[in-house]
Amino acid sequence: MPSDTPQPAFVLIRPQMGENIGAAARAMWNFGLDRMRVVAPRDGWPNPSAVAMASGAGRLLDEAVLAGDVAEGIADRTFVYATTARPRELTKPVFTPEAAMRDAANRIARGEKVAVMFGPERAGMENADIAQANAIITVPVNPDFPSLNLAQCVLLVGYEWRRAVEEAEEMVLRGQRTELAEGAEIEALARHYEERMDEAGFFYPPEKADSMKLNLRNLWSRMPLTRADVQMLHGMMRQLVRWKDKG
Amino acid sequence: MPSDTPQPAFVLIRPQMGENIGAAARAMWNFGLDRMRVVAPRDGWPNPSAVAMASGAGRLLDEAVLAGDVAEGIADRTFVYATTARPRELTKPVFTPEAAMRDAANRIARGEKVAVMFGPERAGMENADIAQANAIITVPVNPDFPSLNLAQCVLLVGYEWRRAVEEAEEMVLRGQRTELAEGAEIEALARHYEERMDEAGFFYPPEKADSMKLNLRNLWSRMPLTRADVQMLHGMMRQLVRWKDKG
Repeated sequence: MPSDTPQPAFVLIRPQMGENIGAAARAMWNFGLDRMRVVAPRDGWPNPSAVAMASGAGRLLDEAVLAGDVAEGIADRTFVYATTARPRELTKPVFTPEAAMRDAANRIARGEKVAVMFGPERAGMENADIAQANAIITVPVNPDFPSLNLAQCVLLVGYEWRRAVEEAEEMVLRGQRTELAEGAEIEALARHYEERMDEAGFFYPPEKADSMKLNLRNLWSRMPLTRADVQMLHGMMRQLVRWKDKG
Repeated sequence: MPSDTPQPAFVLIRPQMGENIGAAARAMWNFGLDRMRVVAPRDGWPNPSAVAMASGAGRLLDEAVLAGDVAEGIADRTFVYATTARPRELTKPVFTPEAAMRDAANRIARGEKVAVMFGPERAGMENADIAQANAIITVPVNPDFPSLNLAQCVLLVGYEWRRAVEEAEEMVLRGQRTELAEGAEIEALARHYEERMDEAGFFYPPEKADSMKLNLRNLWSRMPLTRADVQMLHGMMRQLVRWKDKG
């Protein structure tokens, strides 16, 4: 039985070698993730070489959900990240693994169903696959040697998932949950500031807008803001808009 | 020739399988690290299976420094981290990979020579090895399945190294510094916001103005703001004023 911890599903798109599927299962379970989905695996399913490789994490393969195509694999998900070596689809937000898994933890805390897609070995994901994602995750590798394999990519994203979860748990232990603003409140604050600053023409020049927006989002999510802080920051921005409107 | 980027040496202690040494070389080079040291490898040196596995990162093996024991492997280093599955040596500081690599980047920036030691497969490092380290790195894995292999451990520490370096580089590119803002900078930010918010009529009604100002000052001083954050926040407020002035 999968654990009952809310968590993202990790969706392997058209994986080729069974060994890599098994290694991906191990990498997931190293960080407490146990919801694997497999879309159109090249060598069919179940896959004996995946089972042989997964030793200790074989349960993930037994419980993996098999899907015929990407749409079916993510049909029940409300937010989907695609991992790519280089961000090709520039109309989607691009996250580091860290920012993505913090974002995922916030979304899951407010009841969203999240998936992370991983492309096939070598070729990576096709544009048609990426088009079905809401956001992109790119690992900051050495541009001269960007050779992460499937299990390594799963390992790094899983590691960031666990970091995001442990950070949240630590706050609960310290009894800070009630005081600190929740993910959805930070998200609303980030959106409020991003929208107003956009109207104010802050994100300029256009080619820098995405990274400026990411910096601003990262600022809010890194700060230990209380609910009172969040209310004050909303109030400040509303007042600045009133000030502007009065001319 | 190794790159001339200042960086930690990664020291493999008594590694066993050549394949794992090769995979560790690849994992290092994925994140731009190319100073490998090998202490008493079980199967001698050079190791043909290491070379076969390292494809694309074989240079790291050619240039690797071979040492007979741990003391020799780290003789020229001023600060050494040991990676362990569980922190056993409680008299040493224990870091997450992230905290360790930020610490390493700071040390290297001030001219220290840093090494990270990785124990042999399965057994891990002996207490006598760990005793020669200054600090410990522990990866936060699933306690029910703490089965990271050598190359995965190298991958995660390498990833955190690159994150630490990119964070620093990004700040330099933006002409900003990675350090947390100093007291005087926070003070200037607090004053800037207080003045503008005062002009905007935010501190209202008058009898509440003092406590509102205090809350706002406390907000800035409680937050772990970097110099980059402070500059962005100044820029945001300046832009909001321009927006208002344009009416």
